[in-house]
Amino acid sequence: MKEFTFFVVVVAAIVSLVALSLPASGRADAASAPYVTEMPNGFRDWQWVSSAHEAGTLNSLGAVLGNDIAMKAYREGKWPFPDGSIIAALHYKNVPSDENNKVFGKVQSFVPGAPTNIQFMVKDSVKYAATGGWGFGHFQDGKAATADFMKPCFPCHEKAKATDLVFTRYAP
Amino acid sequence: MKEFTFFVVVVAAIVSLVALSLPASGRADAASAPYVTEMPNGFRDWQWVSSAHEAGTLNSLGAVLGNDIAMKAYREGKWPFPDGSIIAALHYKNVPSDENNKVFGKVQSFVPGAPTNIQFMVKDSVKYAATGGWGFGHFQDGKAATADFMKPCFPCHEKAKATDLVFTRYAP
Repeated sequence: MKEFTFFVVVVAAIVSLVALSLPASGRADAASAPYVTEMPNGFRDWQWVSSAHEAGTLNSLGAVLGNDIAMKAYREGKWPFPDGSIIAALHYKNVPSDENNKVFGKVQSFVPGAPTNIQFMVKDSVKYAATGGWGFGHFQDGKAATADFMKPCFPCHEKAKATDLVFTRYAP
Repeated sequence: MKEFTFFVVVVAAIVSLVALSLPASGRADAASAPYVTEMPNGFRDWQWVSSAHEAGTLNSLGAVLGNDIAMKAYREGKWPFPDGSIIAALHYKNVPSDENNKVFGKVQSFVPGAPTNIQFMVKDSVKYAATGGWGFGHFQDGKAATADFMKPCFPCHEKAKATDLVFTRYAP
């Protein structure tokens, strides 16, 4: 009996420790969290949320598109995004357009050059509970990034908590 | 009879002179050409062609969207665009995103700020024959620009003759 009591206490202690090691929301460890490993179908046909230009070393020009569920939430200004929302960020090198600049007579026109990567945020509050309900994806030449590569996605996007982890605003 | 013959000759001469004064394609004078004075319905829901950033005094960031007919032509790489094609260019001030830059720790993220104007190209080879088959439109706060304002559109876009007067390429 004494041994059994000891066993119960130990198990209870372990359970408590595990529970304490989880964040308050009870989510699993984000480091081993699932992420998006397949590109959603048909994303190139989705509607336009906004454009984005990253200067500096990224030197990127691109667009953010959303599927119908995401667009509806964006347009209604309703957070959090409902399950099923998918947001795609299509990134390209930011390059001058020689053609356009010839017409303008100066270097002022920048357009998307070679594609660099495509990133996704897929909302599934159960599957991606460990990362705020969003699954993150990063694809280069159609290939998904490694789990290691994906680790910084969530902690960075978590800084946009006020807008359900989404940085990009809807362009009117 | 003599007078009637003279009349016919004079009329024929006038007709010939008028015909000669028209460009080879028989189009009317571009300066008094019709242009787009009403915004096409539903353009904000159209698919994304590409993004564009104009540096310098324009300091613009935006996107080009296309209706279904235009998108089909773009994707098939087929010029000229068929009648019914409409291309919309949504322009915004290119502004730094304080929110994003706080996360990045440096000023690198630029996003669409206040809307500046929306421009359209509407393909109708009959109605807009005088301007290469394209009707040009420019709207600020929903109001169409004046005829005078619209005059430089065609001569500038004509420099993109090789791509049916369209500057923007489809981003893959």
